[in-house]
Order: sequence, then C-alpha cells, then structure tokens
Amino acid sequence: MILEMEPNASQEDVEFVIKRAQGLGLTVHVSRQGERTVISVFGNTRGLDPTALAGLRGVRGLRQLSRPFRLASREYKPEPTLVRVGDCTVGGKAVVVMAGPCSVESYDQLRRTAEAVQEAGAAILRGGAFKPRSSPYSWQGLAERGLEILARVREETGLLVLTEVLAPEQVALVSRYADILQIGTRNMQNFPLLHAVGESGKPAVLKRGMMSTVEEWLLSAEYILSHGNEKLILCERGIRTFETYTRNTLDINAVPLLKELTHLPVIVDPSHATGKASLVPAVSLAAVAAGADGLLVEVHPDPERAASDGFQSLSLEQFRGTMEQLRLVARSVGRAMDARAPRGDHD
Amino acid sequence: MILEMEPNASQEDVEFVIKRAQGLGLTVHVSRQGERTVISVFGNTRGLDPTALAGLRGVRGLRQLSRPFRLASREYKPEPTLVRVGDCTVGGKAVVVMAGPCSVESYDQLRRTAEAVQEAGAAILRGGAFKPRSSPYSWQGLAERGLEILARVREETGLLVLTEVLAPEQVALVSRYADILQIGTRNMQNFPLLHAVGESGKPAVLKRGMMSTVEEWLLSAEYILSHGNEKLILCERGIRTFETYTRNTLDINAVPLLKELTHLPVIVDPSHATGKASLVPAVSLAAVAAGADGLLVEVHPDPERAASDGFQSLSLEQFRGTMEQLRLVARSVGRAMDARAPRGDHD
Amino acid sequence: MILEMEPNASQEDVEFVIKRAQGLGLTVHVSRQGERTVISVFGNTRGLDPTALAGLRGVRGLRQLSRPFRLASREYKPEPTLVRVGDCTVGGKAVVVMAGPCSVESYDQLRRTAEAVQEAGAAILRGGAFKPRSSPYSWQGLAERGLEILARVREETGLLVLTEVLAPEQVALVSRYADILQIGTRNMQNFPLLHAVGESGKPAVLKRGMMSTVEEWLLSAEYILSHGNEKLILCERGIRTFETYTRNTLDINAVPLLKELTHLPVIVDPSHATGKASLVPAVSLAAVAAGADGLLVEVHPDPERAASDGFQSLSLEQFRGTMEQLRLVARSVGRAMDARAPRGDHD
Amino acid sequence: MILEMEPNASQEDVEFVIKRAQGLGLTVHVSRQGERTVISVFGNTRGLDPTALAGLRGVRGLRQLSRPFRLASREYKPEPTLVRVGDCTVGGKAVVVMAGPCSVESYDQLRRTAEAVQEAGAAILRGGAFKPRSSPYSWQGLAERGLEILARVREETGLLVLTEVLAPEQVALVSRYADILQIGTRNMQNFPLLHAVGESGKPAVLKRGMMSTVEEWLLSAEYILSHGNEKLILCERGIRTFETYTRNTLDINAVPLLKELTHLPVIVDPSHATGKASLVPAVSLAAVAAGADGLLVEVHPDPERAASDGFQSLSLEQFRGTMEQLRLVARSVGRAMDARAPRGDHD
Repeated sequence: MILEMEPNASQEDVEFVIKRAQGLGLTVHVSRQGERTVISVFGNTRGLDPTALAGLRGVRGLRQLSRPFRLASREYKPEPTLVRVGDCTVGGKAVVVMAGPCSVESYDQLRRTAEAVQEAGAAILRGGAFKPRSSPYSWQGLAERGLEILARVREETGLLVLTEVLAPEQVALVSRYADILQIGTRNMQNFPLLHAVGESGKPAVLKRGMMSTVEEWLLSAEYILSHGNEKLILCERGIRTFETYTRNTLDINAVPLLKELTHLPVIVDPSHATGKASLVPAVSLAAVAAGADGLLVEVHPDPERAASDGFQSLSLEQFRGTMEQLRLVARSVGRAMDARAPRGDHD
Repeated sequence: MILEMEPNASQEDVEFVIKRAQGLGLTVHVSRQGERTVISVFGNTRGLDPTALAGLRGVRGLRQLSRPFRLASREYKPEPTLVRVGDCTVGGKAVVVMAGPCSVESYDQLRRTAEAVQEAGAAILRGGAFKPRSSPYSWQGLAERGLEILARVREETGLLVLTEVLAPEQVALVSRYADILQIGTRNMQNFPLLHAVGESGKPAVLKRGMMSTVEEWLLSAEYILSHGNEKLILCERGIRTFETYTRNTLDINAVPLLKELTHLPVIVDPSHATGKASLVPAVSLAAVAAGADGLLVEVHPDPERAASDGFQSLSLEQFRGTMEQLRLVARSVGRAMDARAPRGDHD
Repeated sequence: MILEMEPNASQEDVEFVIKRAQGLGLTVHVSRQGERTVISVFGNTRGLDPTALAGLRGVRGLRQLSRPFRLASREYKPEPTLVRVGDCTVGGKAVVVMAGPCSVESYDQLRRTAEAVQEAGAAILRGGAFKPRSSPYSWQGLAERGLEILARVREETGLLVLTEVLAPEQVALVSRYADILQIGTRNMQNFPLLHAVGESGKPAVLKRGMMSTVEEWLLSAEYILSHGNEKLILCERGIRTFETYTRNTLDINAVPLLKELTHLPVIVDPSHATGKASLVPAVSLAAVAAGADGLLVEVHPDPERAASDGFQSLSLEQFRGTMEQLRLVARSVGRAMDARAPRGDHD
Repeated sequence: MILEMEPNASQEDVEFVIKRAQGLGLTVHVSRQGERTVISVFGNTRGLDPTALAGLRGVRGLRQLSRPFRLASREYKPEPTLVRVGDCTVGGKAVVVMAGPCSVESYDQLRRTAEAVQEAGAAILRGGAFKPRSSPYSWQGLAERGLEILARVREETGLLVLTEVLAPEQVALVSRYADILQIGTRNMQNFPLLHAVGESGKPAVLKRGMMSTVEEWLLSAEYILSHGNEKLILCERGIRTFETYTRNTLDINAVPLLKELTHLPVIVDPSHATGKASLVPAVSLAAVAAGADGLLVEVHPDPERAASDGFQSLSLEQFRGTMEQLRLVARSVGRAMDARAPRGDHD
C-alpha cells in the first residue's frame, strides 16, 4: 500500500503517519519523489480500515499495489528513473550502447576493441574478468588481472566500464575498478549478492534469469532497491525455450511490458539473446524500436579466436555497421544515440 | 541434394540427369529459377558417388542441404520469393499490413473496421469466420455467413481478404471467398490440411505452431511447397513459454533467422504474440525493424465488446497511430508501406 | 452449473427443470449417473438467482464448476468412467497394456510382435497405418493396407486393435478396422477431428498435445464428450521442455492430477515421453505406481531396423521383462494386470 | 579422456603416465576405484596420438568421454557411489527418506515433526533456517537460531539433519550444525558456492536448477567433485514448464537417465515438483518405482498454518500413510526402507 502525501504536508504530518502505521504493526519505507513524499507501507493490510491512514492530515491518497513488487513499480514511482553513471545517463532520451568482449583476454585485445566501439559511438565498455562457466573445465577469466586491464583502458580512453560480479565478497573489489556492476543471469536470484549490490550503492545492471518470469525479475530488483540502491538497470538477455536454432529467445514483449510495470531503465543484450552474430544487428534494431534504453553487445576484434562466445560476437566492422543502422532507427522512434555529455574532461 | 544446371543446358541434358537419378532409386523435383534449372534429389544419397550425377553434361554444381527442409531453403532458392495476391506483393520492398477483427461478428462491424484500416494504410482485411476455440462452449464464429460478409466488404472496399481454414474439406469453400487462406497455429502440423492447401494453389499464410520449432515450421511449409503451392507466407505469432504476464512470447529472433534459412516472406502477428493491446504498437515496430515483410494485426471498432480476443485488439484510433509510427520505422530500415499498386480499378 | 436431482425425482420434475432453464436462455445437457439424473446448465449463469433453479421440486443440489471443462470433470461425474472395449475394461482395477510397433510395416512384423506382446500380457495391439510425420519426405505409413494387416492380425490373435486417425474424413474408414481410435498429439486441437470422433461413438484415446496444458487437454476431451462419445481415454505422452537429453518430459504429475480433475481413465505412453528405449521400463513402473490405468508402449521385433521410432521401441525380450516388473509394482499399489475377461470366445 | 591402469601397475608406472601427460600440456586428476587407478586427463586431446599415453607400461585402456562432465560420469566410475552420512547410506539398497518442514519455525514445531517422521521411518530431518525467497518482503527464515533448533532436535532424536546454505561464507557456519548441506535450485550455478561446498568435504545435496538441463546439472556436480568432495547426492525437484495447474513438472525421466549417466545417488523432492500436497503421495511412489535412492519431503504438523509452502506440505498423518505405501512399492522394485544401521548409539 502506498500513501502519497500532499506537496505541502509538513514534516510533522509525515512523522505522524509513520508512527500510526508502525503502531498498526506495519513497516514503512519513505522516499521523496520530486515535490512529493511517498510512504510505502508493508505488512498485512488486508483487514485494515482504509481511513486509519488515508484519513490522516496531509495524506493526499492511498493506492493498493496490484503486483507483489513495490519500489520497482510504476504505481510507486510514475516517472522514469534516470541512472547516471559518470557523464552518461541511462533511461533518458539517448540509447546507451555498452559494447566489448565477452571476456577480457589481454590489454591489446581490450584496448583495440575499446577504441573501435568508442569511435562507433558506444559509451560504455563491457568485459568479463570473473566468468561464470557451466563447466569447471572451461576458462574462468583473468580475474583481478582482468579488472586491472579494464581500469587501464578506462583511464586511457575515457570509456566507462561495466563488468560482472559473482559473489557478495567480490562486490568491494569489483567496485574499485568498474563503473557499473553486472549481476549475471545465473545470479538473478542469488539473494546475498543482490543484498550486497544493494548496499554498495554502485550503478548496477541486473540481467534477467534465463528462465525467470518478469515478476520474479522485478522482485529481484526489489531486493536491490530495498537495500538502498536505486541506480538500477534491467537487462533482458533472452529466455530459455524449446527452440534450438538459437541459443535463447529474446523476449521482446518484455521491453514495452517493463515500461508499463516499472520506472527502471531497460536494456537488451542481443548477443546472448540470439547466440548467433548474424542475428545481432536485426535484433538490436528491434530492441531499440520496441523502446529499449540501451544495448549490451559482445564485440571482439577476432571473433573466431575469442576465448569465449566468439560465435555470438560482432567483429569491429560489423559493430560499426550496426551502429549506423541503429542511429536511423533510434531517430525514427524519437531517440538519440549520444548518451554522454561532451567528453572533454576525460581527455 | 541439389543439382544446379548450367544456364545453357539443353532440355535433353536435364532429362538425362533426371533419368539417371531415378535409375539410382532417387526421386526428383525440378524447378526453374530465372535462368537456371534446379533439380532437387530426394532419397538416400549418403553412399552415392558424387560424380554419378555431378559429372553429367550440363550440371553446373551440386550442393548438399544442411537442413532437413529443401524447397523452403535458401540453399535451394537463394532469391526471395515474392507472393503476389491481387495487386499486392508480399516479400518485396513494402511492408504489408493485414488488419481486422479476430472474428467477423456482423456486416456493420466488419465494414466499419475495413474502412478504418484501409484508410490507415492496410492492404489486406483479416477476419475469422471459422474459429478454432479451446472450449466447445466458446463461440465458434459465423461460419459460412462470415465468409459472405467478408466477400461483400471485399467487393465494396477493394481490400483483399484473409481468413482461416480449419479442415481439408473446407479449402474449396473458403477459397471461393478469400484471397489468402490462413492455416492457424493449432493446425501447423495438420498434414492433411497442409496437403489440401498445397494442392489448392491459393496464397496462404502458415502460422507457426505455438509449440513448434523453426525447423518443424519449415518442414510444414515443405508440405505445402511440395504439393505445388509456392505462394506461401510464414507468420510468427509467438510461442508458448513459462512467462505468464503475456499470452505468448514473440520470437523476434525468428525473423532474421528465417531470412537466412528460407526465401519465403515472413510476417508477424503482434496481437497473439503479446495478448495485450498496449504492447502491440511497440512490438509491431520491433517486427518491422527486425525485417518482417508484414504484420497481421487484430483491430476492432470496440475492443471491449469484441466477441473474442478483445483484450489484444487495437481500437481503430490506436491502429491509425501505430501505422504512423510504422511508416517512420519502415523508412529507417529502407522499407515502404504502400503494398498495393494504384487501386483505381477497384474504386 | 450442475443440478443434481433427487434419486426419486419424477420424469416430470426433470422436464420442468429443463424447461425452466431453457426459459432463462440457458442450454442443458442431461445424463443419468447410476440412480441420479444430473442436469448440466450452460450459458451465462452469473446474475442468476440461485433459487430460480435450485428451489424447484426434485432438485437435490446445485454446484458451480470451478474449471472451464464440465462433462469431463469430477464435479460433474464423481465416479470413475470405465471404458469397455470388447471384453477389456480401461479405468478399472486392471492396468491395461497396449503395445506394438510405431508403424505397421508388414504382416510378418505385426504378427510376430502381436504374438509376443499377447503372450507377455498386453491386451491391445497398437500400430500406425496413417503416420503424421514432421517431414513430407519421411515415410507416411502403409495407409489402408496397414489397416488391413491390423485387422487380419486382430482376427488371428484375438487382440484388440488401436490405431491413429488423422482427419475427419478418415474416421469412418479407420473405425471399420480398429477397436480404438487414437487422436495424436499434433491433433489434440484439431477440432473438426474431435467433433467427428465424438460423433462416431467409437472408443478413443486422446493424446495430450506436446505443449498443451492439462486444462486445454480436458477442454479437447470436452469436445468429444459433448458430441456424445463417453468412451474416452486420456494419454499423457510427455511434453516439450528445454531438456535435450530426452525427446520429451513425461509429466508424471499429470497422472494423479487428472485423477482429481476428471473421471476419465488415464494412460501413459512411456515411449514418446522419453524417446529412449533404455528409459522406458523405469518410467513405465513409475506411471503405474502413480496411478495410471494403462500404458501405450512401442515394441518392435527388431528396433534397430524399425521404419520409425526404433530408438524408443522395446525389443520383444525387453517388453517381456518390463511386464514382469510391472506385475509386481501393480500389485504393490493394489492393481492387477489381467485386463481382459477370459479370451475363450476369441480362439 | 580416461586412462585406466592395470590392477598390478606400479606406483612408478602411474607417475610416469602422469608426467608424460603433463609434458603434453594436459592436466590430470588421479583417483583409485577399488583395485584400479584411474587417471582423468583434461585439456585439448583432439590431435593427440592415442599411443602417446595408451601405449605406456601399466596402462590397461583409454576411453574418450562422450559427455562434457567427467568425474560425475559412469564412464569415469562405473560402480554406484554410496554417500555415507553418520550411520545412514544414500545410494545403496535402502530408499532414504528426508522429511520435515520447509522452514524451521520453532522448537516445538520441529520437535513434533521430527518425532512423527522418525516414527514413520524417515532417517533424516530437513528444515530451512536460511530461506531464499523470491520477494524481499517474504519471511527469510530464523537464520542461525533455526540452526540451533535443528541441532537441538538432532541431539534429542538422533535424526540426521539437512539444511540449506545460501552463500560461500555460510558454509563453515552451517556445517557446524548440519549433517548434510543443501544447495538449492536457485544456486545450482552459483559457482563460488559450489566451490566452497566442494572444499568443505561435507555431504551435500545438489538440487537441480528449475531451469537447468541434466547436462548443466552434472557440470555443476563436477564443480563440487573436482574440488574434492565426492559425498554428493543429486535431487530432482521439478522443472519449470508452461503447465500452470502444478508448481513445477517433475522430470521423472531424469531418474533412470541419471542412473545411466552418473554414479551419484539420485533423490526426488515431490513437494516442490508438484506444489500440491494431494499429489505428493502418488508422485513419491512413482519416484521410488523409477529408481530414486531417496525422497526429500515437506511435512508440517499444521500445513495450513505453515510459515511457508504449507500448500505442498504433508500433514504428519498423510506422511505416515505415504510411508506405508512406499514400503510396498520399494519392496516391489527390490528396495528396502531401513536406511540406517541400528540406532542404539544415538539413544
């Protein structure tokens, strides 16, 4: 249940409502949204006399939530959340492209990729240092050395950096090197990790579990939000279905659906969603046309020799071509592609 | 296995190759693609000495097929198939929009919808007369009276008409009234029906089974093609997954994937793919951005009073707005929206 | 809504209730269940004053149905339906085993299989004559010649015969040769076929669609029941999931679930449900332990040379071994394996 | 690749083979299986001359693995693994039943449940202290206080105890209180957790991810095995499908399939696999008939007032009845139900 206070409600009014709610055995979460104070009330409100809270001084109105998620819902916060990362804004007019290799393999590989994606218009460099692999015998990434390479290339190019974090105890370490933490598909319901990322206050991308419903996904977002971190971006990366010609099935419906359900920015990972480089350009265009706020794309200078996921990585050349098409489609739906403020200060 | 003949191969050369193949216990299917004669060879070719056929006079080359479908494959026919229906072409530069109510309910309802979708730019009117319904207690459509209404509105407006056929013995009847036969999702593997539609030679839309892989879908297309009907359009309409907030999950990956695998035109049904009218506009834009050759959209003058599927039908007003957005996106990917030749003769 | 009449209600009482219901714009379906007359009322009963019907003379009680299927529901008919086929009863104490090859290939193949499965305890011989195949290039069965072979072996062995029917216009033909009609997984929602099988009055097995919910399945059963055929057996044959090591996933939950929801007998096809002969014995035992009323098993004298589905067929020897284990498990859950009355009259 | 040494191979022979393999850039894992030493060789063995290793003195034979998992495979270790927990053996002749509440709620609740399940024949008490919940607003369990209650009831009854561990840093804590660690479905690919449980050497149950293939599951098992812990039990707990009448779909096929693929014991959780208490007894019988080595069942003294998952919990009475039926089915497939050695020392 959400209580919206009048714009001119006094601090005293707000505190009186909070105490009354607590006196009824409920817990509260208070936030300010522009002019308004909003009080979210948790607990068993079923038998509650609605006037017990809605009738108090300064309360403008009361809304029941129709879904089990709260802080993530549009009902709770109607206006879109803008996630600011450095001089880049995710969730605004610009479509933000995050690009780079699946895994950081070497300084040269990353530097070369970074320059190419930056020139083509990407704002954020992605690259995995800790790699979650189905098999213990697959390569597990460069670990901390990968983070160091990311940080060096970030320094040299001015690109912002996104990388994955696998466990609660890695959050502090990864946060020192990266601008955005990625929570991967296999960890969408790793609640201790969500808790730790929530407390870190660091911008984060939460990928959808490959067989998680939109509702479960938003409840996982709720873990992060309710631990105090509102710099949260959702990433649709394809779900598991019976189809075998593609690695996953991009749930394109989820893009406009999330725009209805939540105020959080939504990006799409066309690389995992298809598992096939040749499908990535078309699917990227589709994502932007459907309203995605950004893309997370795997790009590699030599996909056939990539240490992981080469089959779904664009070459530098293919990425450049895709960006050109994206610019046209973005414009046709009223979006831009220049996600960052002028970059002078980085150089 | 496919044998491509030299452009200047004689009729005699072609016949010799056919006889030799038959002598080896194989069956053949011959077609002309522009200049070239192409001979598709079926049967057990595994132990075959390749020179037994490839070495014959007039044979330019031999290709093994990598997938179990043949006539539907790009390997068999590299150039895209254009399906001509009246003065409208599906699979060319123009994106073809087929719109109308789920069910034909009355002359007034259909006429009003037809005028609105025509004015907004649709080329083809859809409307169900025979309705396949999960429950025997749900309304099953107007049957032949629905066909008559479709034919009357077609006559009056000049719109082409698409409607569903449910059983082999209905094919002749429905063909008298409709320009395009629709094979619905529940009948994708109704092989006697595919056979009958194949033999009818009538333009047809084959919807993907909600539980079918792309490979099974193309094999069903193969049934129609191999019975002699090449006027075939594939329609992705969403697949069944674990997600419950939407009725189905649009497999947007399938659009560029089919463009690689087959020469047949591909359209998208955003209404069934989402089951939610509010998601239809965004998903329609995505489909066109991804390369779809057309859309099949449910439109109703009064969705809340529709006899079936109202929750996923656009109102006339919403359809008009969607068409305007579609025009911009179509242009951004090099497509047009004027599917029909000038309609003077119809007016 | 279901109206149950008093055991001693007069014919006049029953007719009065029917007329009143019809006068309210409702349609009715009347059946006798043992002593009781039961009137099922269809149509919009939402705003109805409950006493309008429940208060009439001879009406014992009124039940609202909680699910969209009616005639198939336990609420409509609490006691289990026994389907009698010749001297065999499906749905009673005995577990009925239906066994035989995927396809009828020749008289010798069928005869040899029939003798072996009969000796091992099967009551019914299965064998496909019309084969629905994903590819038009796969072998489509012996068609009517297959039916003739089935009829001959039936005559010679006294086994009852089950075979598949693919289209409404085949129902009369197949009914002349077979004791039980099978509706295959791809035709579960082929409504004209359900209609025709309903009107035939012939015992039928309705296989679950490979991606159909239990609710959809029972609604398809409803088509058959509401067209007058109550000799209906449901067959769980595995559903399509993301798992790739097996062909399908047997939904064993469905067995006890159906026992709660419906009065119809439930059998299991372990061959398609696994797609792997080595898994068939264990899964057959599981099905019987879970409460299945029978099994539909693929058996072939030479699985490695079968014309179709050899990889999932038991050899004659394996079938015999499985039957021995089944006997022990059946007994442990209070079931028997002797499905037929003494067969003297057949010999 | 697996090298099996001759039973009489000398230690020197073994070491020579290891050095040669390492010299070829491969890594090795050595184990003794009864009489035999088995050397598992990892790395790129594709271009390898087979005689380079297979021809060395003392090498009996060489097998290529057909699947990506190794230490978990039957090819690596043909005989079944027996997991010993206290005086109880999982994977032997006896079917081991682990029963108890979803969550530990209080000492009284757990003690009452423990006595009842012990009397009915359960060997192991289950109960959650750390609860992974989809929503941050759902109750998260009693945490360490729950562990203390488990330990106290274990002490008093002599039952062994199983409970879930959610994060690597909890492994040491939970290991102090529990006999078996449970890795839950949401953590099947939480690789740091698998690593930590592997190093703990503690008996563990690895539940299948609700969205994971059997291959991915065995690769996750491989993480635990390759970190040195062979006391591993697999638990099938239902997978996510499109069916909505049940919470999950028990993949009963997986039971005999795993018996072919792996030497590890396999148990089944019928409570989560169905999500409906009324289906649990039938599905439990099916699991044992299919060859499961044990069951993990939710039991609660008052299911309607359970803090979590009451709808799928058996009452004490229902559990007792189920155990009686299980005894008969277990016997019919040659299994027993007395999992523990005489318990004198505990009392």
